[in-house]
Amino acid sequence: MEEILINYLSKYITITDELLLAIKESGFIKNFSKGTVLLSEGDLSNECYFILKGCVRCYYNKDGDEKTTDFYTEEQVVISSSYGKNKPSEHYLECVEDTVASVGSPELEAEMYHRFPQLESLARILGDVMMSKYQDTLAEYKIASPEERYLNLLKDRPDLMQRVPQHQIASYLGIKPESLSRIRKRLLNKQK
Amino acid sequence: MEEILINYLSKYITITDELLLAIKESGFIKNFSKGTVLLSEGDLSNECYFILKGCVRCYYNKDGDEKTTDFYTEEQVVISSSYGKNKPSEHYLECVEDTVASVGSPELEAEMYHRFPQLESLARILGDVMMSKYQDTLAEYKIASPEERYLNLLKDRPDLMQRVPQHQIASYLGIKPESLSRIRKRLLNKQK
Repeated sequence: MEEILINYLSKYITITDELLLAIKESGFIKNFSKGTVLLSEGDLSNECYFILKGCVRCYYNKDGDEKTTDFYTEEQVVISSSYGKNKPSEHYLECVEDTVASVGSPELEAEMYHRFPQLESLARILGDVMMSKYQDTLAEYKIASPEERYLNLLKDRPDLMQRVPQHQIASYLGIKPESLSRIRKRLLNKQK
Repeated sequence: MEEILINYLSKYITITDELLLAIKESGFIKNFSKGTVLLSEGDLSNECYFILKGCVRCYYNKDGDEKTTDFYTEEQVVISSSYGKNKPSEHYLECVEDTVASVGSPELEAEMYHRFPQLESLARILGDVMMSKYQDTLAEYKIASPEERYLNLLKDRPDLMQRVPQHQIASYLGIKPESLSRIRKRLLNKQK
Protein backbone atom coordinates (compact mmCIF):
# COMPACT_ATOMS: atom_id res chain seq x y z
CA MET A 1 0.00 0.00 0.00
CA GLU A 2 2.80 2.43 0.76
CA GLU A 3 3.78 2.26 -2.93
CA ILE A 4 0.70 4.40 -3.65
CA LEU A 5 1.99 7.04 -1.25
CA ILE A 6 5.52 6.84 -2.65
CA ASN A 7 4.28 7.07 -6.26
CA TYR A 8 2.23 10.09 -5.30
CA LEU A 9 5.12 11.82 -3.53
CA SER A 10 7.48 11.08 -6.42
CA LYS A 11 5.31 13.18 -8.73
CA TYR A 12 6.52 16.21 -6.79
CA ILE A 13 9.89 15.41 -5.23
CA THR A 14 12.82 13.03 -5.58
CA ILE A 15 12.46 10.12 -3.16
CA THR A 16 15.88 9.40 -1.73
CA ASP A 17 16.66 5.97 -0.25
CA GLU A 18 16.75 7.53 3.19
CA LEU A 19 13.27 9.03 2.77
CA LEU A 20 11.98 5.75 1.36
CA LEU A 21 13.27 3.92 4.42
CA ALA A 22 11.80 6.52 6.78
CA ILE A 23 8.38 6.15 5.16
CA LYS A 24 8.53 2.36 5.33
CA GLU A 25 9.76 2.38 8.94
CA SER A 26 7.36 4.97 10.26
CA GLY A 27 4.55 2.44 9.87
CA PHE A 28 1.93 5.13 9.68
CA ILE A 29 -0.39 3.25 7.35
CA LYS A 30 -3.59 2.18 9.09
CA ASN A 31 -6.80 0.32 8.27
CA PHE A 32 -10.21 1.63 9.30
CA SER A 33 -13.47 -0.29 8.89
CA LYS A 34 -16.51 1.25 7.29
CA GLY A 35 -18.37 3.30 9.89
CA THR A 36 -15.28 4.26 11.87
CA VAL A 37 -15.58 7.81 13.18
CA LEU A 38 -12.14 9.41 12.83
CA LEU A 39 -13.17 12.67 14.46
CA SER A 40 -16.27 13.79 16.37
CA GLU A 41 -17.70 17.25 17.01
CA GLY A 42 -16.08 18.62 20.16
CA ASP A 43 -12.93 16.48 19.83
CA LEU A 44 -9.43 17.83 19.25
CA SER A 45 -8.04 16.92 15.83
CA ASN A 46 -4.51 15.57 16.05
CA GLU A 47 -4.45 13.35 12.98
CA CYS A 48 -4.52 13.98 9.26
CA TYR A 49 -4.91 11.29 6.60
CA PHE A 50 -3.74 10.60 3.07
CA ILE A 51 -6.24 8.15 1.61
CA LEU A 52 -4.73 5.16 -0.13
CA LYS A 53 -8.05 3.35 -0.53
CA GLY A 54 -11.56 4.14 0.63
CA CYS A 55 -13.79 7.13 1.29
CA VAL A 56 -14.19 9.51 4.22
CA ARG A 57 -17.14 11.86 4.68
CA CYS A 58 -17.12 15.17 6.53
CA TYR A 59 -20.42 16.25 8.05
CA TYR A 60 -21.86 18.70 10.54
CA ASN A 61 -24.73 18.07 12.92
CA LYS A 62 -27.10 21.00 12.50
CA ASP A 63 -30.14 20.80 14.79
CA GLY A 64 -30.10 16.99 14.58
CA ASP A 65 -29.64 16.99 10.80
CA GLU A 66 -26.46 15.61 9.21
CA LYS A 67 -25.11 18.15 6.71
CA THR A 68 -22.46 16.58 4.46
CA THR A 69 -19.83 19.06 3.31
CA ASP A 70 -17.10 16.90 1.79
CA PHE A 71 -16.07 13.48 0.53
CA TYR A 72 -12.44 12.42 0.40
CA THR A 73 -11.26 9.50 -1.74
CA GLU A 74 -8.01 8.01 -3.08
CA GLU A 75 -5.00 10.36 -3.21
CA GLN A 76 -6.81 13.05 -1.25
CA VAL A 77 -5.72 14.54 2.04
CA VAL A 78 -8.23 14.65 4.90
CA ILE A 79 -7.31 17.47 7.20
CA SER A 80 -9.79 19.04 9.58
CA SER A 81 -9.72 22.83 9.75
CA SER A 82 -9.09 22.36 13.49
CA TYR A 83 -6.12 19.99 12.94
CA GLY A 84 -3.26 20.70 15.33
CA LYS A 85 -4.99 23.88 16.55
CA ASN A 86 -6.05 22.64 19.98
CA LYS A 87 -9.63 23.78 19.46
CA PRO A 88 -12.67 21.49 19.35
CA SER A 89 -13.76 20.25 15.94
CA GLU A 90 -17.12 21.48 14.68
CA HIS A 91 -17.62 18.48 12.41
CA TYR A 92 -17.40 14.70 12.11
CA LEU A 93 -15.13 12.62 9.88
CA GLU A 94 -16.49 9.15 9.16
CA CYS A 95 -15.28 6.30 6.93
CA VAL A 96 -18.12 5.53 4.51
CA GLU A 97 -16.09 2.59 3.13
CA ASP A 98 -13.35 0.36 4.55
CA THR A 99 -10.43 2.76 4.34
CA VAL A 100 -6.64 2.48 4.23
CA ALA A 101 -4.81 5.71 4.98
CA SER A 102 -1.42 7.01 5.84
CA VAL A 103 -1.86 8.85 9.14
CA GLY A 104 0.05 11.99 10.10
CA SER A 105 0.25 14.09 13.26
CA PRO A 106 1.72 17.50 14.06
CA GLU A 107 4.62 15.76 15.87
CA LEU A 108 5.36 13.37 13.00
CA GLU A 109 5.14 16.26 10.52
CA ALA A 110 7.59 18.38 12.52
CA GLU A 111 10.03 15.48 12.79
CA MET A 112 9.80 14.59 9.09
CA TYR A 113 10.18 18.24 7.95
CA HIS A 114 13.24 18.51 10.15
CA ARG A 115 14.81 15.34 8.74
CA PHE A 116 13.68 15.89 5.14
CA PRO A 117 13.33 19.60 4.33
CA GLN A 118 12.13 18.69 0.82
CA LEU A 119 8.97 17.34 2.48
CA GLU A 120 8.19 20.81 3.75
CA SER A 121 8.49 22.20 0.20
CA LEU A 122 6.15 19.44 -0.87
CA ALA A 123 3.71 20.28 1.95
CA ARG A 124 3.72 23.90 0.79
CA ILE A 125 3.03 22.90 -2.81
CA LEU A 126 0.26 20.45 -1.84
CA GLY A 127 -1.20 23.06 0.52
CA ASP A 128 -1.35 25.48 -2.42
CA VAL A 129 -3.01 22.85 -4.60
CA MET A 130 -5.60 22.10 -1.92
CA MET A 131 -6.24 25.76 -1.24
CA SER A 132 -6.86 26.40 -4.95
CA LYS A 133 -9.25 23.47 -5.00
CA TYR A 134 -11.21 24.84 -2.05
CA GLN A 135 -11.25 28.33 -3.60
CA ASP A 136 -12.64 26.97 -6.87
CA THR A 137 -15.13 24.71 -5.09
CA LEU A 138 -16.42 27.59 -2.98
CA ALA A 139 -16.72 29.90 -6.00
CA GLU A 140 -18.44 27.20 -8.05
CA TYR A 141 -20.82 26.43 -5.20
CA LYS A 142 -21.76 30.11 -4.94
CA ILE A 143 -22.19 30.61 -8.68
CA ALA A 144 -23.72 27.38 -9.95
CA SER A 145 -27.37 26.36 -9.84
CA PRO A 146 -28.16 23.05 -8.08
CA GLU A 147 -28.43 21.33 -11.49
CA GLU A 148 -25.07 22.74 -12.57
CA ARG A 149 -23.52 21.60 -9.28
CA TYR A 150 -24.82 18.08 -9.90
CA LEU A 151 -23.49 18.04 -13.48
CA ASN A 152 -20.09 19.31 -12.30
CA LEU A 153 -19.92 16.58 -9.66
CA LEU A 154 -20.88 13.93 -12.25
CA LYS A 155 -18.07 15.19 -14.49
CA ASP A 156 -15.38 15.65 -11.82
CA ARG A 157 -16.10 12.71 -9.51
CA PRO A 158 -18.32 10.19 -11.29
CA ASP A 159 -17.24 7.41 -8.90
CA LEU A 160 -18.88 9.16 -5.93
CA MET A 161 -22.37 8.47 -7.31
CA GLN A 162 -21.82 4.72 -6.88
CA ARG A 163 -19.93 4.96 -3.62
CA VAL A 164 -22.13 7.00 -1.30
CA PRO A 165 -25.88 7.12 -0.57
CA GLN A 166 -27.95 9.56 -2.63
CA HIS A 167 -29.18 11.51 0.41
CA GLN A 168 -25.56 12.29 1.29
CA ILE A 169 -24.91 13.44 -2.30
CA ALA A 170 -28.00 15.67 -2.08
CA SER A 171 -26.81 17.14 1.22
CA TYR A 172 -23.35 17.73 -0.29
CA LEU A 173 -24.99 19.61 -3.18
CA GLY A 174 -27.01 21.67 -0.70
CA ILE A 175 -30.38 20.36 -1.88
CA LYS A 176 -33.12 18.05 -0.61
CA PRO A 177 -33.12 14.39 -1.74
CA GLU A 178 -36.40 15.05 -3.60
CA SER A 179 -34.77 17.89 -5.54
CA LEU A 180 -31.89 15.62 -6.53
CA SER A 181 -34.40 13.02 -7.80
CA ARG A 182 -36.19 15.72 -9.81
CA ILE A 183 -32.92 16.97 -11.33
CA ARG A 184 -31.90 13.44 -12.32
CA LYS A 185 -35.31 12.75 -13.84
CA ARG A 186 -35.24 16.03 -15.79
CA LEU A 187 -31.77 15.29 -17.16
CA LEU A 188 -32.79 11.74 -18.07
CA ASN A 189 -35.79 13.05 -19.99
CA LYS A 190 -33.57 15.52 -21.85
CA GLN A 191 -31.34 12.66 -23.01
CA LYS A 192 -34.28 10.70 -24.46
CA MET B 1 4.05 50.60 4.66
CA GLU B 2 6.45 47.69 4.64
CA GLU B 3 6.38 47.80 8.46
CA ILE B 4 2.89 46.26 8.24
CA LEU B 5 4.29 43.37 6.24
CA ILE B 6 7.28 42.96 8.56
CA ASN B 7 5.07 43.06 11.67
CA TYR B 8 2.86 40.43 10.11
CA LEU B 9 5.77 38.15 9.16
CA SER B 10 7.34 38.53 12.61
CA LYS B 11 4.26 36.93 14.19
CA TYR B 12 5.40 33.69 12.57
CA ILE B 13 9.17 33.83 12.02
CA THR B 14 12.25 35.66 13.23
CA ILE B 15 13.10 38.49 10.87
CA THR B 16 16.87 38.55 10.45
CA ASP B 17 18.63 41.76 9.35
CA GLU B 18 19.38 40.11 6.02
CA LEU B 19 15.71 39.28 5.42
CA LEU B 20 14.69 42.78 6.52
CA LEU B 21 17.09 44.27 3.98
CA ALA B 22 15.89 41.92 1.24
CA ILE B 23 12.26 42.94 1.87
CA LYS B 24 13.15 46.63 1.83
CA GLU B 25 15.30 46.32 -1.29
CA SER B 26 12.94 44.15 -3.27
CA GLY B 27 10.63 47.15 -3.61
CA PHE B 28 7.62 44.96 -4.25
CA ILE B 29 5.12 47.29 -2.62
CA LYS B 30 2.78 48.89 -5.17
CA ASN B 31 -0.16 51.30 -5.19
CA PHE B 32 -3.32 50.61 -7.16
CA SER B 33 -6.16 53.10 -7.61
CA LYS B 34 -9.75 52.17 -6.94
CA GLY B 35 -11.16 50.43 -9.99
CA THR B 36 -7.87 48.86 -11.08
CA VAL B 37 -8.44 45.40 -12.51
CA LEU B 38 -5.58 43.22 -11.26
CA LEU B 39 -6.70 40.16 -13.20
CA SER B 40 -9.30 39.55 -15.91
CA GLU B 41 -11.10 36.41 -17.00
CA GLY B 42 -8.94 34.66 -19.60
CA ASP B 43 -5.67 36.21 -18.38
CA LEU B 44 -2.78 34.28 -16.90
CA SER B 45 -2.25 35.01 -13.21
CA ASN B 46 1.40 35.70 -12.40
CA GLU B 47 1.00 37.97 -9.40
CA CYS B 48 -0.20 37.44 -5.85
CA TYR B 49 -0.82 40.23 -3.34
CA PHE B 50 -0.56 40.78 0.39
CA ILE B 51 -2.88 43.69 1.16
CA LEU B 52 -1.38 46.40 3.33
CA LYS B 53 -4.31 48.78 2.84
CA GLY B 54 -7.45 48.62 0.75
CA CYS B 55 -9.89 46.07 -0.58
CA VAL B 56 -9.91 43.72 -3.56
CA ARG B 57 -12.99 41.93 -4.87
CA CYS B 58 -13.06 38.62 -6.73
CA TYR B 59 -15.94 38.12 -9.13
CA TYR B 60 -17.06 35.90 -11.97
CA ASN B 61 -19.02 36.97 -15.03
CA LYS B 62 -21.90 34.53 -15.35
CA ASP B 63 -24.09 35.22 -18.38
CA GLY B 64 -23.43 38.95 -18.07
CA ASP B 65 -24.04 38.98 -14.31
CA GLU B 66 -21.23 39.80 -11.87
CA LYS B 67 -21.10 37.13 -9.15
CA THR B 68 -18.94 38.27 -6.23
CA THR B 69 -17.22 35.38 -4.48
CA ASP B 70 -14.66 37.05 -2.22
CA PHE B 71 -13.43 40.26 -0.63
CA TYR B 72 -9.83 40.65 0.53
CA THR B 73 -8.78 43.36 2.98
CA GLU B 74 -5.80 44.27 5.20
CA GLU B 75 -3.43 41.41 6.09
CA GLN B 76 -5.10 39.05 3.64
CA VAL B 77 -3.42 37.31 0.73
CA VAL B 78 -5.02 37.58 -2.71
CA ILE B 79 -4.03 34.57 -4.74
CA SER B 80 -6.00 33.40 -7.74
CA SER B 81 -6.57 29.67 -7.97
CA SER B 82 -4.85 29.90 -11.40
CA TYR B 83 -1.77 31.72 -9.99
CA GLY B 84 1.45 30.44 -11.51
CA LYS B 85 -0.41 27.60 -13.23
CA ASN B 86 -0.26 28.91 -16.82
CA LYS B 87 -3.99 28.45 -17.29
CA PRO B 88 -6.47 31.25 -17.97
CA SER B 89 -8.21 32.78 -14.98
CA GLU B 90 -11.96 32.22 -14.71
CA HIS B 91 -12.51 35.30 -12.59
CA TYR B 92 -11.71 38.98 -12.15
CA LEU B 93 -9.81 40.67 -9.33
CA GLU B 94 -10.66 44.36 -8.93
CA CYS B 95 -9.62 46.99 -6.39
CA VAL B 96 -12.81 48.33 -4.82
CA GLU B 97 -10.74 50.89 -2.87
CA ASP B 98 -7.36 52.55 -3.42
CA THR B 99 -5.11 49.67 -2.47
CA VAL B 100 -1.51 49.25 -1.32
CA ALA B 101 -0.14 45.74 -1.62
CA SER B 102 3.05 43.81 -1.55
CA VAL B 103 3.21 42.01 -4.88
CA GLY B 104 4.69 38.55 -5.35
CA SER B 105 5.39 36.38 -8.39
CA PRO B 106 6.39 32.72 -8.82
CA GLU B 107 9.94 33.87 -9.71
CA LEU B 108 10.27 36.17 -6.70
CA GLU B 109 8.85 33.44 -4.45
CA ALA B 110 11.35 30.85 -5.73
CA GLU B 111 14.24 33.27 -5.26
CA MET B 112 13.16 34.28 -1.75
CA TYR B 113 12.54 30.66 -0.64
CA HIS B 114 16.01 29.77 -1.91
CA ARG B 115 17.67 32.64 -0.05
CA PHE B 116 15.50 32.40 3.08
CA PRO B 117 14.29 28.84 3.68
CA GLN B 118 12.35 30.01 6.74
CA LEU B 119 10.06 31.90 4.31
CA GLU B 120 9.04 28.58 2.77
CA SER B 121 8.10 27.24 6.24
CA LEU B 122 6.10 30.41 6.69
CA ALA B 123 4.41 29.96 3.30
CA ARG B 124 3.45 26.43 4.32
CA ILE B 125 1.99 27.62 7.62
CA LEU B 126 0.09 30.51 5.98
CA GLY B 127 -1.11 28.14 3.26
CA ASP B 128 -2.50 25.87 5.98
CA VAL B 129 -4.18 28.81 7.69
CA MET B 130 -5.77 29.94 4.41
CA MET B 131 -6.85 26.44 3.48
CA SER B 132 -8.57 26.00 6.88
CA LYS B 133 -10.31 29.31 6.33
CA TYR B 134 -11.60 28.25 2.92
CA GLN B 135 -12.70 24.88 4.31
CA ASP B 136 -14.67 26.55 7.10
CA THR B 137 -16.11 29.17 4.77
CA LEU B 138 -17.27 26.52 2.31
CA ALA B 139 -18.80 24.39 5.07
CA GLU B 140 -20.49 27.41 6.62
CA TYR B 141 -21.83 28.53 3.25
CA LYS B 142 -23.31 25.07 2.66
CA ILE B 143 -24.83 24.76 6.11
CA ALA B 144 -26.06 28.24 7.00
CA SER B 145 -29.27 29.90 5.92
CA PRO B 146 -28.93 33.25 4.10
CA GLU B 147 -29.82 35.09 7.32
CA GLU B 148 -27.19 33.11 9.26
CA ARG B 149 -24.62 33.89 6.54
CA TYR B 150 -25.39 37.59 6.87
CA LEU B 151 -25.10 37.48 10.67
CA ASN B 152 -21.81 35.59 10.45
CA LEU B 153 -20.43 38.18 8.03
CA LEU B 154 -21.56 41.01 10.31
CA LYS B 155 -19.77 39.34 13.20
CA ASP B 156 -16.58 38.32 11.36
CA ARG B 157 -16.08 41.28 9.03
CA PRO B 158 -18.21 44.20 10.20
CA ASP B 159 -16.02 46.69 8.27
CA LEU B 160 -17.07 45.20 4.90
CA MET B 161 -20.61 46.53 5.31
CA GLN B 162 -19.30 50.10 5.13
CA ARG B 163 -16.66 49.46 2.50
CA VAL B 164 -18.47 47.77 -0.38
CA PRO B 165 -21.83 48.30 -2.11
CA GLN B 166 -24.80 46.35 -0.77
CA HIS B 167 -25.48 44.56 -4.06
CA GLN B 168 -21.96 43.11 -3.94
CA ILE B 169 -22.55 41.96 -0.34
CA ALA B 170 -25.80 40.32 -1.45
CA SER B 171 -24.03 38.57 -4.34
CA TYR B 172 -21.28 37.41 -1.96
CA LEU B 173 -23.96 35.93 0.33
CA GLY B 174 -25.57 34.21 -2.65
CA ILE B 175 -28.82 36.13 -2.42
CA LYS B 176 -30.66 38.88 -4.33
CA PRO B 177 -30.30 42.50 -3.14
CA GLU B 178 -34.03 42.49 -2.28
CA SER B 179 -33.54 39.46 -0.05
CA LEU B 180 -30.68 41.20 1.75
CA SER B 181 -32.93 44.23 2.36
CA ARG B 182 -35.66 41.97 3.72
CA ILE B 183 -33.22 40.17 6.05
CA ARG B 184 -31.89 43.50 7.36
CA LYS B 185 -35.41 44.83 7.91
CA ARG B 186 -36.47 41.65 9.70
CA LEU B 187 -33.43 41.79 12.02
CA LEU B 188 -34.00 45.48 12.69
CA ASN B 189 -37.62 44.76 13.68
CA LYS B 190 -36.47 41.98 16.01
CA GLN B 191 -34.18 44.44 17.81
CA LYS B 192 -37.00 46.89 18.48
